[in-house]
Amino acid sequence: MLNDQPIGVFDSGLGGLTVVKAIRKILPNESVVYLGDTARVPYGNKSQKLIQEYSLQIAEFLIEKGAKMIVVACNTASALALDVLQQSISVPLIGVIEPGVDAALRVTKNRHVGVIGTIATISSGAYQNGLLQQDEAIQVESKDCPLFVPLVEEGWLNEPATDLIVHEYLDEMKNKSIDTLILGCTHYPLLKPSIRRALDNQVTLVDSADVVAEKTDDILKENQLFSERSESGALQCFVTDLPARFQVVAERFLGETIHEAQTVHLP
Amino acid sequence: MLNDQPIGVFDSGLGGLTVVKAIRKILPNESVVYLGDTARVPYGNKSQKLIQEYSLQIAEFLIEKGAKMIVVACNTASALALDVLQQSISVPLIGVIEPGVDAALRVTKNRHVGVIGTIATISSGAYQNGLLQQDEAIQVESKDCPLFVPLVEEGWLNEPATDLIVHEYLDEMKNKSIDTLILGCTHYPLLKPSIRRALDNQVTLVDSADVVAEKTDDILKENQLFSERSESGALQCFVTDLPARFQVVAERFLGETIHEAQTVHLP
Repeated sequence: MLNDQPIGVFDSGLGGLTVVKAIRKILPNESVVYLGDTARVPYGNKSQKLIQEYSLQIAEFLIEKGAKMIVVACNTASALALDVLQQSISVPLIGVIEPGVDAALRVTKNRHVGVIGTIATISSGAYQNGLLQQDEAIQVESKDCPLFVPLVEEGWLNEPATDLIVHEYLDEMKNKSIDTLILGCTHYPLLKPSIRRALDNQVTLVDSADVVAEKTDDILKENQLFSERSESGALQCFVTDLPARFQVVAERFLGETIHEAQTVHLP
Repeated sequence: MLNDQPIGVFDSGLGGLTVVKAIRKILPNESVVYLGDTARVPYGNKSQKLIQEYSLQIAEFLIEKGAKMIVVACNTASALALDVLQQSISVPLIGVIEPGVDAALRVTKNRHVGVIGTIATISSGAYQNGLLQQDEAIQVESKDCPLFVPLVEEGWLNEPATDLIVHEYLDEMKNKSIDTLILGCTHYPLLKPSIRRALDNQVTLVDSADVVAEKTDDILKENQLFSERSESGALQCFVTDLPARFQVVAERFLGETIHEAQTVHLP
């Protein structure tokens, strides 16, 4: 029956597995079908048109695989393709922007919030507009940080060079006295220790993985879609290319080993 | 007529424009048709199967556009797809590996050569095998440097963080007393000053752009394919996606402004 079908989750690459990890923690009986678009990663420096085209292909694939709802775990796709997806997809759909905005507004005290993400996410203004729509008086600082994704993929989480790069990107924001920083990319939570150091532990970091998992729980409740399974849900993982370091990188995000990933070819 | 048709050049992204620049310098009357596969960049962390598929699509596209010969300006595609291309393409074809190997063998004195490149290029062993086939006694040190491409794309060529990263990757090679280093990626020549600093100016850097341009000249000569045009050749530029920072990044590699780039959709 529909309720026992999986939650579909996708990202441009493997970073979205941080969202899968959070979902599996609070919804252990739900199955998850994940697609990482590893053949076409990264999305962060691609055009809106292309990101919309790719996102639609993936959403259709996940629905074919039985997804009862879809979580767009990619910030770039959430920022640039959520509207288009909402128009064409029949199952409930959430992105990562709105949950991140809500969480930031809950924690900020001085109403001064920072957002970091890829070039595409930041230049879309999705987070900035989302924050201002909820609260006109909020002050928003934003910064794209294109080197963070490659640093995480290389596993350089606490190297001296990483700290230098994090400083370079965040020093201006720090000087503007933000009290909350939205990590607007699924890769960035792995850099939390370095980001905390750069901000002297004075800023609350909003990691969308946990809030997206909570929102997923809300959507299943609203739509009466909870699985009736009593055992643990399965995780089925698809990628569009199987790169050499797949296992290492996947485990870095998921926190557990993926025993099998099937390669699929999207148009 | 055939001789006045363009030289086809391709790369996974825009880095191959360094090769176009070198070709236009020594062959100013030749026209060039360039394709940068910006929708699917980078190739360096993709599988061999996918890189072969993409390379074939692009070679066919360039031949449709009239290419009288093809230069595979991408190191990763040269390392993993040149054989497959040679089997299916009817026009003369060169990659960047063999010219780089030849140049390194000409300059090394102590027969101890280093090679750096993407994960895919280095793990293919293409440079290492190419060197050993020419000279069994040569000692080869190799190292993949995945952070170099994003650093160049971000324009961080001489930052303190760049120097730190270059040191981290090259210190081991330096300690092994290489006297020659092949820059096995079209992005890396832009990091030459930082690489020279890391190696205390003791090592000769082999930048394949110039040697590939010379080899292109040889191939045109052998096949009697020189253009009979007396005016300057044109540069026609195609990309598979037009990213936000296209002009800035393209100019960084080409050293001149690209006035127009057409976006094409490959299957």
